[in-house]
Amino acid sequence: MARAIRVVVLGSGSWGTTVAALSARNTPTLVWSRNEETAREISTEHRNRRYLGERPLPESLRATSDLVEAAHEADVLVVGVPSDAVRETLEPIADELRAWVPVVSLVKGLEPGTRLRPTQVMAECLPGHPVGLLAGPNLAGEIADGMAAAAVVAMQDDAVAAALQPLFATPRFRVYRNTDVLGCELGGILKNIVAIAAGMAEGLSVGDNTRAMVLSRGLAEMTRLGEAMGASPRTFAGLTGMGDLIATCMSPSSRNRRVGEALARGMTIEEAVDALGQVAEGVKTAPTVLELAREYGVEMPIAAEVAAVVTGQRTPTDVYRGLRRVAPGDEEDIV
Amino acid sequence: MARAIRVVVLGSGSWGTTVAALSARNTPTLVWSRNEETAREISTEHRNRRYLGERPLPESLRATSDLVEAAHEADVLVVGVPSDAVRETLEPIADELRAWVPVVSLVKGLEPGTRLRPTQVMAECLPGHPVGLLAGPNLAGEIADGMAAAAVVAMQDDAVAAALQPLFATPRFRVYRNTDVLGCELGGILKNIVAIAAGMAEGLSVGDNTRAMVLSRGLAEMTRLGEAMGASPRTFAGLTGMGDLIATCMSPSSRNRRVGEALARGMTIEEAVDALGQVAEGVKTAPTVLELAREYGVEMPIAAEVAAVVTGQRTPTDVYRGLRRVAPGDEEDIV
Repeated sequence: MARAIRVVVLGSGSWGTTVAALSARNTPTLVWSRNEETAREISTEHRNRRYLGERPLPESLRATSDLVEAAHEADVLVVGVPSDAVRETLEPIADELRAWVPVVSLVKGLEPGTRLRPTQVMAECLPGHPVGLLAGPNLAGEIADGMAAAAVVAMQDDAVAAALQPLFATPRFRVYRNTDVLGCELGGILKNIVAIAAGMAEGLSVGDNTRAMVLSRGLAEMTRLGEAMGASPRTFAGLTGMGDLIATCMSPSSRNRRVGEALARGMTIEEAVDALGQVAEGVKTAPTVLELAREYGVEMPIAAEVAAVVTGQRTPTDVYRGLRRVAPGDEEDIV
Repeated sequence: MARAIRVVVLGSGSWGTTVAALSARNTPTLVWSRNEETAREISTEHRNRRYLGERPLPESLRATSDLVEAAHEADVLVVGVPSDAVRETLEPIADELRAWVPVVSLVKGLEPGTRLRPTQVMAECLPGHPVGLLAGPNLAGEIADGMAAAAVVAMQDDAVAAALQPLFATPRFRVYRNTDVLGCELGGILKNIVAIAAGMAEGLSVGDNTRAMVLSRGLAEMTRLGEAMGASPRTFAGLTGMGDLIATCMSPSSRNRRVGEALARGMTIEEAVDALGQVAEGVKTAPTVLELAREYGVEMPIAAEVAAVVTGQRTPTDVYRGLRRVAPGDEEDIV
């Protein structure tokens, strides 16, 4: 039998830890935590209480707070740190990683300042490594609880994707493949903005029709930007587009949705983010995506409204009044 | 000013009455009810208590139980009767309708036996009339309550669609246009099947990830069948596809979802349909759609599972176990 493929996951947030737990069921897996106490808790108590409460982690899952040790072990490198920490985490290990080790992103936000997608930042930091991602409608808590779910591993090289598939798949976690890395990645980034809009809708009690309208029109503008950037429109109708969008917008535990709800209840953006106590990527992403939309000449009315709310220029009530103001035309048109 | 366009709505169920109420705000509108007492209640008490409770209807909305009178009045004929009653309702008025009167379907099920879509049945019964539909994520009760929503009027001739748009649009009900009549119609028919699957998921408490997976994979198989039949795949990502699917699957008041939930709680299909007391189109549609899928050589695993449950061959628990059994491949593949 061939030597086992060792998976290293960088980042011990709820999703990084959950992916590490899935992988640990299939192959030797090490998770790197910036926090020494968290690493110890995972290795010795098989818990990550801050992010996953008392849910037991596999006993075979090991953890370290030594980044270089982690890099040396990796046959596959999974990156699950926040979008603004990708560069500072990967730059120090560029020369520590073995050649050809595939890099799998779990990150769903643009890099502040550069507007680069996570896989672009990873490709810059780790030149020569194939870079892709694992994404889909995956609420970490549910997967940690063993509920059924599906995801997509996206790599330009389908052979690499096929080799990665069995590392993450379990009987309750189906892993599909897709070669449209750009489309899969944009889905996970852009849906956070729509989730804030959906949360505002929830907070204003606008009903299931309006919610479905926000999601449909939101997916339409996500798809428009994606296509303009070179992604396949079909990807947005799949698990990493529509699927992730639905899970994020519908789940009361979604962070971006909760920010939207808090805004609708009259909190300022600072209060809403403080109340959450975790990262809500959509807050930072919305203004950046609008810049991209302008650059590619794509209209994104929902992203524009969300950006206006998170930058304090408009209130959620104004936004939902505005949603009804413009005369709609052909369904493929911009509003 | 040009003579007002008179809208006639056939059928006084919850959606027919609600569309008639929208139209009555814009133009003279008459609703036909098979039931004399319902017609009287709408005309004189401005209520349709069986379907819409105490919600007030516009005072200008008139009703009749005389089908020929209704046909004579129509400049636009809206058909909102159940799918198995379309033919018997329209055949008697084929010679009563003025030439060129557009026919707008609200019906979302295939005709039993013939497997024809509602617009096909309408075109057979009323040859020479342009036939299209009004569809989207539209839960009748919410729209009757004045909550914001959006819909699509689909006609092959965009000029006819543009003339129909202002008849149904209100400040809270946005009406878009689409010329892909087939795609828009299939969305409304096929989503009922996925809604039964989503209801079963709900009844089995499978979580938001699985729910999002069912909806995404459900939309994927809806799109595959639609494309094979000649519809545009983009239509399925719009309001009449994804939008209607989300509203139907997410709303606790959706009839098809409620049937799925009842099945998951162990009721037989007869008990589930009895408990509902209204039509759940997906129950009749699922086996018929499977025949279509076979004819067009398209795999529809979710429809197949739903058909197996509604015909008593499998239980919802079996089905959700089965969902996890097949090895997933490329995201565009069949399972």
